[in-house]
Amino acid sequence: MEAVRLEEKFALFSDHWRPKVVAAANGQELKLIKVRGEFPWHHHHDADELFLVWKGTFRVEFKDHIVTLGRGDVVVVPAGVLHRTAADEEAEILCFEPKGLLNTGNVTDAEFSAPTDVKI
Amino acid sequence: MEAVRLEEKFALFSDHWRPKVVAAANGQELKLIKVRGEFPWHHHHDADELFLVWKGTFRVEFKDHIVTLGRGDVVVVPAGVLHRTAADEEAEILCFEPKGLLNTGNVTDAEFSAPTDVKI
Repeated sequence: MEAVRLEEKFALFSDHWRPKVVAAANGQELKLIKVRGEFPWHHHHDADELFLVWKGTFRVEFKDHIVTLGRGDVVVVPAGVLHRTAADEEAEILCFEPKGLLNTGNVTDAEFSAPTDVKI
Repeated sequence: MEAVRLEEKFALFSDHWRPKVVAAANGQELKLIKVRGEFPWHHHHDADELFLVWKGTFRVEFKDHIVTLGRGDVVVVPAGVLHRTAADEEAEILCFEPKGLLNTGNVTDAEFSAPTDVKI
């Protein structure tokens, strides 16, 4: 049991939309993600996703509304709900979700689907 | 699906060691806790606990070492591991753990055992 320093971990990578696992608990993983631009519309049929903005401004877009989040703001996307994430400028995001979840959910995207369980 | 603003939520309470649930996902809860002083030694026999320091300095003490955490630092306490949390000055903590978990685990403490599932 040792400390994981999120600022140090964020400094180790620069790619966007590629989740990095920094901790695990109860079958869930805490992932760090740098984001910029627009992610594909998708859903996760059996998993909720909890997002917490660490730095910058981040949007979670649903079919009927958009949630805009700044540092220290949280949103939960329930299982099965279609959504798209986006950021006009680079932002740093924490994501808490089940181990091994594919970032693009029901969609396979050559650019955006990322390897799961990449640790940093 | 709406934003939860952690700074606004932390401003709503001042009691120490009384977890407040602000979000839930996949059977887990995100709790806010203000801490100061020393919490009783305890363990959770079937649940890991993930702590993330939002503000201040926080210690998680194990029998053989102490983990000192500042803002943006994370530690996971695995199920069954005896530990004590502490802070010399008030700190603000996020905790991810299974829904309904008693804060004092295997211990019942008249002062520190807090109601579960208190939302804010």
